[in-house]
Amino acid sequence: MKKQRMLTGDRVTGKLHLGHYVGSLKNRVRLQDQYETFVLLAEALTTHFDKPGLIRSHLREVALDYLAVGINPDHATIVVQSMIPEIAELTVLFSMFVTVNALRHNPTIKSESKSSGLDEMYYGFLGYPVSQTADITFCKAAIVPVGEDQLPHLELTRKIVRRFNELYRPVLVEPKPLVGDIPRLVGTDGNAKMSKSLGNSIMLDSSPEEIALKIRRAVTDPARIRKNDPGHPDHCPIYAYHLAFRKEGAAEIRESCEQGSMGCSECKQRITAAIEQLLAPMQERRSYYAGRPKRIDDILVAGTERARTIARETMLEVREAMSLNYF
Amino acid sequence: MKKQRMLTGDRVTGKLHLGHYVGSLKNRVRLQDQYETFVLLAEALTTHFDKPGLIRSHLREVALDYLAVGINPDHATIVVQSMIPEIAELTVLFSMFVTVNALRHNPTIKSESKSSGLDEMYYGFLGYPVSQTADITFCKAAIVPVGEDQLPHLELTRKIVRRFNELYRPVLVEPKPLVGDIPRLVGTDGNAKMSKSLGNSIMLDSSPEEIALKIRRAVTDPARIRKNDPGHPDHCPIYAYHLAFRKEGAAEIRESCEQGSMGCSECKQRITAAIEQLLAPMQERRSYYAGRPKRIDDILVAGTERARTIARETMLEVREAMSLNYF
Ligand code: SF4
Ligand code: SF4
Repeated sequence: MKKQRMLTGDRVTGKLHLGHYVGSLKNRVRLQDQYETFVLLAEALTTHFDKPGLIRSHLREVALDYLAVGINPDHATIVVQSMIPEIAELTVLFSMFVTVNALRHNPTIKSESKSSGLDEMYYGFLGYPVSQTADITFCKAAIVPVGEDQLPHLELTRKIVRRFNELYRPVLVEPKPLVGDIPRLVGTDGNAKMSKSLGNSIMLDSSPEEIALKIRRAVTDPARIRKNDPGHPDHCPIYAYHLAFRKEGAAEIRESCEQGSMGCSECKQRITAAIEQLLAPMQERRSYYAGRPKRIDDILVAGTERARTIARETMLEVREAMSLNYF
Repeated sequence: MKKQRMLTGDRVTGKLHLGHYVGSLKNRVRLQDQYETFVLLAEALTTHFDKPGLIRSHLREVALDYLAVGINPDHATIVVQSMIPEIAELTVLFSMFVTVNALRHNPTIKSESKSSGLDEMYYGFLGYPVSQTADITFCKAAIVPVGEDQLPHLELTRKIVRRFNELYRPVLVEPKPLVGDIPRLVGTDGNAKMSKSLGNSIMLDSSPEEIALKIRRAVTDPARIRKNDPGHPDHCPIYAYHLAFRKEGAAEIRESCEQGSMGCSECKQRITAAIEQLLAPMQERRSYYAGRPKRIDDILVAGTERARTIARETMLEVREAMSLNYF
C-alpha cells in the first residue's frame, strides 16, 4: 500500500529550541518512516519582508536543526517554499473564493487585529491561511501535524479544499490534523511558551554548559522558599520538563517535590542530565553537517526539485479541473 | 534606442464592443509599433471562478477581437495571464507589504464594499490592485494605457513598485499611465457606459444589419419631439458617436442638430455608415482568423512563451534583490 503524505514545516525565523522539538520535531522524526514526509521551510516573508538577508541565514540554520534532530533526508523531503511557484499559483487561485470574513474570523488574525487593527494588517498576513492551504495541497498531504493553536487554520484549509473540490472536481486532498502529545513547552521563566525572543528557551544547539546555566536560572515553584517546603510541581517549569523529557521518572519527582523531600537543585540536576543526554546525539549530527554546508545545500536542492515535480503534477490536475488547461 | 514596454490587456469576460475599441483597443493598435507591446488576457477568476468553462471560450473570443481590430501578433505579444506563474509569485511577494487599508481605500473596492460590505468580499478581489501590479511589473512595462477609472489602481501600483525598489533594489519599473482621448463611450440607451450586460453596446463582430438596428433603436435627445425642434447634441449618444467615429463631420452635426435643420433619422444613417465603414476591415480580418482556430492558439502559445522568458528574467532579478536566490 502506498504511504499517505504528511506535510510539516516551519516559518523560518531562526534557530529552533526544545519547544519546537517537543511540539513538532519529535513527532516528525517518529513519523517520517510511517508517512511520505514533506518538510516545508517557509520563508517568513509576512513578517520578515524587510530583513531579506536574515531569511537566507535562518533557512540554513533551520535545515541544520532538522538534520540534527534526526530528520533523514533519504526519508523526508525538505522543501524551500518560495522555490515552488505552484504554491504561489495555488494561493492566487484559492484567494478567489475565500471571503475576507472567513479570514478575519480566524483566531490568529483576530488576536493580531485586536492589537493593530485589521486596516494596518498586511494583505499577505490576512491571507496566511490561504497560502497555508497552498502549502498543504501542492503535494496533496493527507496528514498535517499541528499544534493546538493551529487547528483553526487547518479547519479553514479543509473548508477551502472542500470548496475547490465541489466547485470543480475532487482533485485535492482534505488534510487531517495530527495533534502532538505536548503541543507547548513552558519557558524557563514560567511563561506558557518557549520563545526565542523572550530568552526563555533552550536552543537545540546549546552546549552542556548552556543547558546547565539555563536550568540553574530557571524559575521553580515560587511558593517553595526553603528546601523542605512542600512544592507544587504543576506550577514549576522544571516539572514540565521532567514530564516532557524524563517521563519515566516524573511520578517520583512529583512525590518528592510535594513531600518536600528533594531540593530544587537536585531536581534541576536530574533534568539537566536528561536534556544533555537527549541533545548529545543531535550535537553529533549537527557537527557532521555544520562542516559540510555544500551537503546541506544539496539536500535542499534535491528536496525542492522532488517537490516541484509533484507540484507540477498537482497544478496540471488543478488547471484541468478549472478548465484552465488551454494548450 | 530600445523601445519602451507597454502593457495593456483585458479581464476576459466575453466579446468586446465599440466602448472597448474607443477606450483602449484603438490606442493599442496605434501604439503597437511605437512601444514594445504586451497584451494580457486576464482570466476573470475574481468574478468567474465558478464558471470555468466560460472563461475558456471567452479567451478565444477576445483573442479574435484583438486580431480583428488590428493588433498585429508580429508586433504585439498576446499573453494568457494564468500561464505565467511568475505573475502569481509576484502577487504573493507584493502582498507582504501592502496593507489592507491601502486596498480598501481604493475607489473600486470602496464602491464594491458599499454594496456588499468588505466582509463578504473575496480575498482575491480585495487584492486586485496587487495582482494588477504583478501583471504590469512581470515585463517591466513603463507605459500602461488606462481608462480614467483605472487611475487610482495604477497609483497604487506605482506605490507598490516604489516600495519594492526602496526595500530591496531598484529592479522594477514604475509604470506611467496613458489616458486615452475618450475613455468611455456612452451606451445606445444613454447610459454613461457601454456594457454588454445592459444590452446597450455595439459589438465589434456586429453585422451591418445589427449595427443599423442598434442605432435605429438608440435614444436621442429626449427634448426633441418633432423633426424641426432644436436638439441638444450633448444629451444625445448619437452625437457622442459622431465625435468618436466621425470627428471631421461632428461640428456640422452639432450645428444642424441645434438649428433643427436635420432629422435624427438622417443623423443616425450617417453614423451607421461610419461605424459600418470602421468595422468592415475588422470583419474581414475576423473571418480570416475565425476559420483558423489553430492559428489563434499558435499566436497565444507563442506570445505566452515569449512573455514567460521575460517573466523568468524579471523573477530572477526580484529573487536576487530580495536575497531569495539560494541556489
Ligand atoms: S523540586 Fe523540582 S518540581 Fe519541585 S519546585 Fe523544585 S524544581 Fe520544581
Ligand atoms: S440630430 Fe443627431 S445629435 Fe441631434 S438629437 Fe438627433 S440624433 Fe442626436
